[in-house]
Amino acid sequence: MSRFLTPDEVEAAFYAAFQTLDIALMGAVWAAEEPSPVCVHPGGDLLQGRGEVLSSWREVLTGAERPELHFRVIQRTATNGLAVHLVEELIRPSRSREEPNRILATNVYRQTAEGWRMTAHHASLPLMGKRPAAATPETPKPRMH
Amino acid sequence: MSRFLTPDEVEAAFYAAFQTLDIALMGAVWAAEEPSPVCVHPGGDLLQGRGEVLSSWREVLTGAERPELHFRVIQRTATNGLAVHLVEELIRPSRSREEPNRILATNVYRQTAEGWRMTAHHASLPLMGKRPAAATPETPKPRMH
Repeated sequence: MSRFLTPDEVEAAFYAAFQTLDIALMGAVWAAEEPSPVCVHPGGDLLQGRGEVLSSWREVLTGAERPELHFRVIQRTATNGLAVHLVEELIRPSRSREEPNRILATNVYRQTAEGWRMTAHHASLPLMGKRPAAATPETPKPRMH
Repeated sequence: MSRFLTPDEVEAAFYAAFQTLDIALMGAVWAAEEPSPVCVHPGGDLLQGRGEVLSSWREVLTGAERPELHFRVIQRTATNGLAVHLVEELIRPSRSREEPNRILATNVYRQTAEGWRMTAHHASLPLMGKRPAAATPETPKPRMH
């Protein structure tokens, strides 16, 4: 099992596992202990617990071809033992000629007895630009006036 | 200005500001200092910096009617000075008879000189159930076999 000494090391391993379709490495990335890991794929529902989270990644990675994948950390927030990264991912399926999908992810890392591990990955696909439209579920419309 | 003594107090104020359309309270909820606040509304792009984040909330809250809003913390992860909550939000526009929108949010709180403040809110709408479909942008398909 890999042992990661910093949040950045876990993050690099997470994206390497994704890019090289390495299920064993993905297993080493995610935390085993409480609180149980949580994962939200773009447009997906909540996955909770190491079993459910890793099962979804197994499904994503098994039988797939290596995607083209780049990531950029937009912001890091950290204290002793806990770190939150806001990351932009650019993912293009192998041999696709289309523009890569741009995904925003909040990644959470925790220091455990086994070194730093990922404990949450919440990803979403920006569909609507910066402004919350009337259609945004967070918008309590209709307007009064 | 309010001063929040715990992450749960900021969170309660965040949802109260949302539910009562209280822009001043929303301003008191968000951190002022570095690292600058980040916010992703459901389906939205990254908003970065206190000005951009609060401007989006002003747009959501201004002229709206109070929504029906319930939230439930599914998971808390915390260390000294930093806390991450995974929250389920149920939001129904005022006078709507439809089912409420169910939103998943990762909320990040930081201890600052002015007490606990929100520093990140990443929200998304589950559209596809638990299983990452072939259409999921995180899925590096096509398959080889």
